[in-house]
Amino acid sequence: MVVFPPKQSDNPMFIHENFLLSNKAAERLYHDYAAVQPIIDYHNHLSPQAMAENSSFQNLYHMWVDGDHYKWRAMRANGVDERYCTGDAPPHEKFSAFAATVPRTLRNPIYHWTHLELKRFFNCDTLLDSDSAETIWNEANRQLVERRELTPLGILQQFQVKALCTTDDPVDDLGYHRQLQHAARMGDCQTLVLPAFRPDQALRVNDPVEYLSWIKRLEQASDTSIGGLDDLKSALKKRHDFFHEMGGRLSDHGCEYVPANFCDDQTADRIFRQALSGQAASPIELEQFSTELLLFLARLDAEKGWTNQFHTGVWRNNNRRLFSAAGRDIGCDSIADTPQGFSLGRFLDRLDQEGNLPKTIVYNLNPSDNYLVATMLGNFQDGRIAGKMQFGSGWWFLDQKEGMQWQLNTLSNTGLLSRFIGMLTDSRSFMSMPRHEYFRRILCDMLGRELEAGEIPNDFGLVGKMVADICYQNAKDFLGLPMA
Amino acid sequence: MVVFPPKQSDNPMFIHENFLLSNKAAERLYHDYAAVQPIIDYHNHLSPQAMAENSSFQNLYHMWVDGDHYKWRAMRANGVDERYCTGDAPPHEKFSAFAATVPRTLRNPIYHWTHLELKRFFNCDTLLDSDSAETIWNEANRQLVERRELTPLGILQQFQVKALCTTDDPVDDLGYHRQLQHAARMGDCQTLVLPAFRPDQALRVNDPVEYLSWIKRLEQASDTSIGGLDDLKSALKKRHDFFHEMGGRLSDHGCEYVPANFCDDQTADRIFRQALSGQAASPIELEQFSTELLLFLARLDAEKGWTNQFHTGVWRNNNRRLFSAAGRDIGCDSIADTPQGFSLGRFLDRLDQEGNLPKTIVYNLNPSDNYLVATMLGNFQDGRIAGKMQFGSGWWFLDQKEGMQWQLNTLSNTGLLSRFIGMLTDSRSFMSMPRHEYFRRILCDMLGRELEAGEIPNDFGLVGKMVADICYQNAKDFLGLPMA
Amino acid sequence: MVVFPPKQSDNPMFIHENFLLSNKAAERLYHDYAAVQPIIDYHNHLSPQAMAENSSFQNLYHMWVDGDHYKWRAMRANGVDERYCTGDAPPHEKFSAFAATVPRTLRNPIYHWTHLELKRFFNCDTLLDSDSAETIWNEANRQLVERRELTPLGILQQFQVKALCTTDDPVDDLGYHRQLQHAARMGDCQTLVLPAFRPDQALRVNDPVEYLSWIKRLEQASDTSIGGLDDLKSALKKRHDFFHEMGGRLSDHGCEYVPANFCDDQTADRIFRQALSGQAASPIELEQFSTELLLFLARLDAEKGWTNQFHTGVWRNNNRRLFSAAGRDIGCDSIADTPQGFSLGRFLDRLDQEGNLPKTIVYNLNPSDNYLVATMLGNFQDGRIAGKMQFGSGWWFLDQKEGMQWQLNTLSNTGLLSRFIGMLTDSRSFMSMPRHEYFRRILCDMLGRELEAGEIPNDFGLVGKMVADICYQNAKDFLGLPMA
Repeated sequence: MVVFPPKQSDNPMFIHENFLLSNKAAERLYHDYAAVQPIIDYHNHLSPQAMAENSSFQNLYHMWVDGDHYKWRAMRANGVDERYCTGDAPPHEKFSAFAATVPRTLRNPIYHWTHLELKRFFNCDTLLDSDSAETIWNEANRQLVERRELTPLGILQQFQVKALCTTDDPVDDLGYHRQLQHAARMGDCQTLVLPAFRPDQALRVNDPVEYLSWIKRLEQASDTSIGGLDDLKSALKKRHDFFHEMGGRLSDHGCEYVPANFCDDQTADRIFRQALSGQAASPIELEQFSTELLLFLARLDAEKGWTNQFHTGVWRNNNRRLFSAAGRDIGCDSIADTPQGFSLGRFLDRLDQEGNLPKTIVYNLNPSDNYLVATMLGNFQDGRIAGKMQFGSGWWFLDQKEGMQWQLNTLSNTGLLSRFIGMLTDSRSFMSMPRHEYFRRILCDMLGRELEAGEIPNDFGLVGKMVADICYQNAKDFLGLPMA
Repeated sequence: MVVFPPKQSDNPMFIHENFLLSNKAAERLYHDYAAVQPIIDYHNHLSPQAMAENSSFQNLYHMWVDGDHYKWRAMRANGVDERYCTGDAPPHEKFSAFAATVPRTLRNPIYHWTHLELKRFFNCDTLLDSDSAETIWNEANRQLVERRELTPLGILQQFQVKALCTTDDPVDDLGYHRQLQHAARMGDCQTLVLPAFRPDQALRVNDPVEYLSWIKRLEQASDTSIGGLDDLKSALKKRHDFFHEMGGRLSDHGCEYVPANFCDDQTADRIFRQALSGQAASPIELEQFSTELLLFLARLDAEKGWTNQFHTGVWRNNNRRLFSAAGRDIGCDSIADTPQGFSLGRFLDRLDQEGNLPKTIVYNLNPSDNYLVATMLGNFQDGRIAGKMQFGSGWWFLDQKEGMQWQLNTLSNTGLLSRFIGMLTDSRSFMSMPRHEYFRRILCDMLGRELEAGEIPNDFGLVGKMVADICYQNAKDFLGLPMA
Repeated sequence: MVVFPPKQSDNPMFIHENFLLSNKAAERLYHDYAAVQPIIDYHNHLSPQAMAENSSFQNLYHMWVDGDHYKWRAMRANGVDERYCTGDAPPHEKFSAFAATVPRTLRNPIYHWTHLELKRFFNCDTLLDSDSAETIWNEANRQLVERRELTPLGILQQFQVKALCTTDDPVDDLGYHRQLQHAARMGDCQTLVLPAFRPDQALRVNDPVEYLSWIKRLEQASDTSIGGLDDLKSALKKRHDFFHEMGGRLSDHGCEYVPANFCDDQTADRIFRQALSGQAASPIELEQFSTELLLFLARLDAEKGWTNQFHTGVWRNNNRRLFSAAGRDIGCDSIADTPQGFSLGRFLDRLDQEGNLPKTIVYNLNPSDNYLVATMLGNFQDGRIAGKMQFGSGWWFLDQKEGMQWQLNTLSNTGLLSRFIGMLTDSRSFMSMPRHEYFRRILCDMLGRELEAGEIPNDFGLVGKMVADICYQNAKDFLGLPMA
């Protein structure tokens, strides 16, 4: 299935077998210990529907470019009109506009991701640019028609994804998950597709109109009439139980920071009832209510042995013109510098004192806060579960080589790298699966260099086991997903 | 013109042709693509008068040491008395005190700058220290007398500075710029010397005495009677128009952070009138007024296609004893940690919503804020102008190897390095021109290393073009200076 | 005294003579210039009693594991029950639990420290893990009985510690220091053991019960009746004088940030009297009182030519469950992000204006503040004492390879590395002395790499002298300890 002409000898392949591996030890660690591991992609935004339907992608644009805010940011910075990003240009033209931007992304992670993805999915060694765009478009689209490996489930199988966790609203009926798990039992799907509980909507008492409409959906989903805070908690617990039955083992929260503005139940109840009656919570009330509810939700996680995730440090929708025109998640979000260390500590401490602190992963977005967050998490390792508090993998703007190196170094220097549960794609695209490979190469390159320099022992048993653990085994042991 | 004895073979030249270039690819990128580019020094504090008069420098002290706060900081840290810094010691003694400090600056950028400058201006390969001070002093002073290449305009020609932008008060009559542009038309000056609009004084409503005196100068310069905010705006617009006629295409603002405390015109007008009547603005009023005026000024920039610059993140005059004794800009300024990301975003968003956001460069001084600022800027790339929002070159304390690498990495990972308009000296000294070379070597070394490691393609056409663009072409295309 | 079997040839020693030295220049710098230097350990928490009594350690646990919060953090993160950390498990079992954790600390500084310490104290080349734990336990304990070099004073002699400064409460009678200095005069102790003045307790007006009890101890120690602020100051001055007589030349303060909330004497006096009467100071009063007292104490330092130290940027006792169970200093402290630059500047400026700014070292814990703090310190270099304001060595969570590199780079780029007074252990354990070696290797590796790359001159006289200065001579000259 070699579909692109082999590169000439004076222009070696960009994505070759030792891409990013700068030393012999790294090569050995990668090929012998990392590459052979299957994948548990424990946090992503893949579409359960797309997996359940498992249709072929219409074309390379729909598979790869559509909805990708990383690409849109790069294109805008390259002077490409919005029409070719979120606008109404035809798919082929949008793809061409992206292709023309690619050579301009040298040193941006997009440059690596693009070519790694073209290589792994289409065996393409041609660098994407305006000249090659047409050839790649045609060839990729041809393959999309012909090769079943390029459907959603085909991809998951090809990448040895043993399990993956989507990101789901508590009101979701998880119908597609049910279909997928049935297919798995029938042997038609090699990947265990599980839901994860993402109740961001439950906190939004500052936006009563949207909130009320969501509460109504929750009432239906939980078969609960919701008048006050206790009802809300019951309803959420029912859904949490249901997600558990469906194999869910993780929660997830997107928040600027983990709040710790403790209030009593009456206050939270009052704020909730006000919101239901149409009165928006003040910023302080929002913080109080969020604290109360996040504590409640964390207790549910602790009770069932789940893992709780926080994605912190983002300011969203900073460009209001584009927000009005094109909505959320279009590449106008950025890193925040909200103080977050102290509050995170107080939140975790409250749960720890109660004996209700679940396994927790914090994904931090501002690299300046890496050490702050990692050392705060270290205060709550409790000696019962190895690596209980996880300093999460490099995320979003940090999901690139130096960002990953920073995360790995921070964790190594302030905690135990050996207990790290590793990489996840956090992606909306099936074409992001090679991110695991990208991470593994960076990890192995770093360890290989240090092994050769004598900074870690020249012991492939010891170091190789750590690599294998971080790539797969730690996540398997830690998360307790209902895998076979 | 070899004036210093050649170094002995066992003690190779410190500044040799491949200084800072650690690999073959870097050498090729530097010599074939970077070194051959001319210079556009689009932001500096050079004296238009010195260029217009174009006198020889009196001696090495006046050319090189006088007024250099970097050197003063180093000397003080080395235990050198203030008399030899800002004090009244004779020039020769001050030079000797600096020379004795130089070997103590190992690993400080001063060590590199010093020897690169001695090499490029005087072809001196001797390391400066107490032993060599006398020889270098005499030889350099001899050359200053004999070589016309060492006058201000001679230097600019030698370094192929095609254009440079000084930093000017709106009340300045730009007489020297006029002279210089005339000289250029006559063929007597190879460099286009342009003004840049720096209206910091227009914001200082918190210091009514100085403010009033400046407003009077503005009234004269603009031939406008200024009683209220509208008059102030008219006057500033007239000067902006005048700077435009004189070839100005950039504004610049020095501020701790970009403010976004929006108020209505009446409020701003009231604050302004109060200041004129001698009543100092409160901190909040200062913030409101600054916001209002910076928005107004940015709109002028947008209208004329100018580029707006912000230099943020500094606390000035921290040592009040030395401030009383010796005034501003004497090496007692330092990095601030004022929160600045959110406010920057709101300011840019306001202009973007109006359709009035000009091309903008933000120079950030606190390295911890690099990612914060760069990702915020990325939200306002609008797809109309490539690289419209520029994350500016490593500045002041960051104008050194690791600072430049951080800036380049931040920009690369969060935006498009290929669209970067590159280096500027920001200097008061004509001897700082080799900073462009310093930057180019660091850039090429980084790219060369990655090229050899296979992290970017082994394609000198692709990578070399990016180098050439960053060194010269991008600034030329982006800034739209009225060059031939 | 080779006690462990030599390693086999296919598994080279981990801690070999060129450990961490990646190039020939580094080897030469380390072995010829660094390793030969004696040690001045000018800040640590060693027990004067243990030195005065100079008993053999009971076993490896008591010498090495007991009280080590770094190890406890790692063990908890590895899922080791609290019983084996601060709990009541027998020493041998606790040691075994630590040993089992060691292989899990790969890339954490503990991994390097552990093996460097085992090598230097017991000549052990075996990597510690569950398999080797028993052998190492037995062999080390055997040596502890047999070798006098392994007593506290034996260790200090072996490591050529010429002087060390403990950390002492002003109320301490320094009886053990007296004994040790007597022993030194008798030739029984090769190390000058000096006290350092750490008056944290004097600031705690927010905790009246503990405060009153401490004030009573101060009254006794100073033979002063303390009713108001002036009395407190007199008493503290008496103790400062006494510490000076006993050879003390450094103060030290642990504080979240250096406060600069200036108040008048009456206010401070009122806050003090309130505290004595049992009324806790409010947060603002605490800040005012701390400012007042820290200024007073700094003036004492300035008067006597002492060096004042600040350890800033920590949040302590974040885990209240473990604090209740096991108290302070058990590994539940972490990095703070309290804004600290501005306040530090105002504090130093006040003293500088008065002419009372002592030599000062600031140890910063949040790596994001490195440049901020270092450039603020640079504003107060006064040209009288070389390196007067010291940006202190990488501390606590930063006392590891990348933390040290950051500190060295920050200092180099913003000040004078050549004037740096270098490393200190800050440790409670006599087994931490090899930290000096660890630091020196990292320093030499960095300089050697740059020397070979031509970034600093290939001049071992110049660079080697700087190494020797940083390792020993600068601290000797700067601190003015009463050494022979």
